[in-house]
Amino acid sequence: MGNNGNHGGNHGTERETGGGPAGGALAGIRILDLTRMLSGPFCTALLADAGAEVIKIEARGTGDDARHFAPRQGGEGTYFMLLNRGKRSVTLDLKSPRGRDIVRDLARGADVLVENFRPGAADRLGIGYDAMSALNPGLVYASISGFGQDGPMAGVAAYDIIAQAMSGLMSITGFPDGPPTRVGESMGDIIAGLYGAFGILAALQARAHSGRGQHVDVAMFDSMFSLLVTPLSQYLFTGEEPRRVGNRHPVSTPFDAYRAGDGLVIIAVANERLFARFAACIGHPGLEADGRFSSDERRTRNEPALRALIEEWTGARSVAEVVETLGREGIPSSPIWTVPEAANSAQVAARGLITRFHHPTAGEIPLVPQPVRFSGTPAAVRRPPPLLGEHTDAILAGLLGLDDAAIAALRDDGVI
Amino acid sequence: MGNNGNHGGNHGTERETGGGPAGGALAGIRILDLTRMLSGPFCTALLADAGAEVIKIEARGTGDDARHFAPRQGGEGTYFMLLNRGKRSVTLDLKSPRGRDIVRDLARGADVLVENFRPGAADRLGIGYDAMSALNPGLVYASISGFGQDGPMAGVAAYDIIAQAMSGLMSITGFPDGPPTRVGESMGDIIAGLYGAFGILAALQARAHSGRGQHVDVAMFDSMFSLLVTPLSQYLFTGEEPRRVGNRHPVSTPFDAYRAGDGLVIIAVANERLFARFAACIGHPGLEADGRFSSDERRTRNEPALRALIEEWTGARSVAEVVETLGREGIPSSPIWTVPEAANSAQVAARGLITRFHHPTAGEIPLVPQPVRFSGTPAAVRRPPPLLGEHTDAILAGLLGLDDAAIAALRDDGVI
Repeated sequence: MGNNGNHGGNHGTERETGGGPAGGALAGIRILDLTRMLSGPFCTALLADAGAEVIKIEARGTGDDARHFAPRQGGEGTYFMLLNRGKRSVTLDLKSPRGRDIVRDLARGADVLVENFRPGAADRLGIGYDAMSALNPGLVYASISGFGQDGPMAGVAAYDIIAQAMSGLMSITGFPDGPPTRVGESMGDIIAGLYGAFGILAALQARAHSGRGQHVDVAMFDSMFSLLVTPLSQYLFTGEEPRRVGNRHPVSTPFDAYRAGDGLVIIAVANERLFARFAACIGHPGLEADGRFSSDERRTRNEPALRALIEEWTGARSVAEVVETLGREGIPSSPIWTVPEAANSAQVAARGLITRFHHPTAGEIPLVPQPVRFSGTPAAVRRPPPLLGEHTDAILAGLLGLDDAAIAALRDDGVI
Repeated sequence: MGNNGNHGGNHGTERETGGGPAGGALAGIRILDLTRMLSGPFCTALLADAGAEVIKIEARGTGDDARHFAPRQGGEGTYFMLLNRGKRSVTLDLKSPRGRDIVRDLARGADVLVENFRPGAADRLGIGYDAMSALNPGLVYASISGFGQDGPMAGVAAYDIIAQAMSGLMSITGFPDGPPTRVGESMGDIIAGLYGAFGILAALQARAHSGRGQHVDVAMFDSMFSLLVTPLSQYLFTGEEPRRVGNRHPVSTPFDAYRAGDGLVIIAVANERLFARFAACIGHPGLEADGRFSSDERRTRNEPALRALIEEWTGARSVAEVVETLGREGIPSSPIWTVPEAANSAQVAARGLITRFHHPTAGEIPLVPQPVRFSGTPAAVRRPPPLLGEHTDAILAGLLGLDDAAIAALRDDGVI
């Protein structure tokens, strides 16, 4: 982490060695990245940070739609830049047979191909799993989609909000007297991207034994549904419908946001020992013996009465005072930070969660690397996000052995 | 997926081959699992589904606290059962020197160790990274914690709600006129568990080249903060504080839950071509030429006026009618499902997202496997969740070569 060097402007001098400085856990793994927008790019960014060489194929002319999202800096979408750090960009016209031939040629030399087209689209282009694995039986081919490659809804377009809505997550997020609530970031895409990285690495592990690649099929809906462990542990066994409980925990109390003098403060007391200590802190020693509050279940049943006692104490103090007082007793408590407060925290700085890079058109830019810390093979952002097609020539020359004349002909013919 | 066999009741006849039927991507990988509650068990469940052999070490007598959570079936917590499918259980007293010796002996023969103690606790027990990697330099040692193994907050206890609150996620989830909102599932734990699986597999990839393991340090806070791509792409570049926008998308419109005659319906129109088609659908052909609505940015600015037109149309129809009508035109739209509706859907059935197993005390139980589909090395739940200490004898005999007398002595002395 914390690679702060100036790495911009390699256009035209790129070598086929790729992947940047050695040392990442995935050094030597080459990934052909046919994804755009969020789920796929999030996946391949994790792999790039961990040392893989990622070659991003973009539509000639326009590139990844995310390049055009606001806000922009130096003509480049900031959302695109955060998601495409560490990758190289090759532009191709995938509608042209020669463009697709180049994808096939690159797939011959790749370890992994990742795509997030609508299911069936890659097959129609002649770059689906069957075609590619025939060319390169060792290829791990990962597909990320809304509802998967088969099943009744394969082929249905899914934006994040649809995966959140249909998985059940929206129905359990929010307050009992309010509507189902979308998580404020596109968790459906992001979780599917994370599962994509998991699936790809598991398939590489299998390949180390068998020599064979396989198709890794990740669906946003499946990914969201299967992580609802708490509500599924209720519904699947009792038949009771899980409901929205606001910021409370469904079965543990106190565990919520409480009113302090200057805002909301989080308090999470998860066991009996801590509750006794907490009760003493808020001026009610012995409350753990009160029949209304003597177990998690009873506290949950008598939540309003307990909340009144807690807020009598928190309401007379600032958030900072509450967090400090409870912290001294080892009782988990925290403020609710805004994104700026989190981004500017000592924790983010100490853990290297924001790094800076020089970008050829956007200048000095912040980037957010993947969060896992590897003691032996440090992860790092190894390149700034690429300009559109910045590495087309270098990769066609370096990996496919095309000479200047061949590359010029492809450009003249509108293939690259 | 979809392993529906009856696998219960192997107590006492377990063999050291472990891991169940062959075929998983991670077959041959042995994981020593010192985790409890959610983040760690979620991580090792993914690895077990993908074929790894997972040996779960539990506190003698009580076991993983999650065993005791309500609801229970056959004396076993349902939450525990969902999270601990596919693993074997060994009980040990980690406070006893001989108990810790057994952990060290098992770590000698493991590929991976995962723990989610408070940072520093494993070191104090003599089973921290330094001690274990000295015994087994190839060991991948993963630590999952609230704030990481170093930095200003290492050592601070974090429950999920604290990671959600401090990362900034709560501040951007919910409605502009409502409070910051916790996601209704413990995403902080789950995402850290997923990153743990990613980190472990990346470290195994590195080990294939170097022969050396390493320490993989995953923090809930870091994991949550670094996935806030959309708000960070705004704040880090413009300095503007991202705010709660309810179920809307921060920069795209229409993309929200709208009122239909019998409930809320999701509509997500992400580009100009779709908006023109959508406008015709709702009886306003040509609306895309109206200056108020002729770009995503303008539609976002004039959202209330556009919402009125949309709800005039959706309000006169049922959710099902809206979804069907828009679906015919390829416009993304969906109902908001409850957890029961999702669980009982044809999609969940077709994708094998719920599987059934026989459990020795709980009888027939539903389990939810990891969601990635591997064409060559299918993932599957290979064992039911273990009874407490179900495999202690088999593993001490099979992996450490202890004879019946030695095991009986350990039991008499309260070590196992």
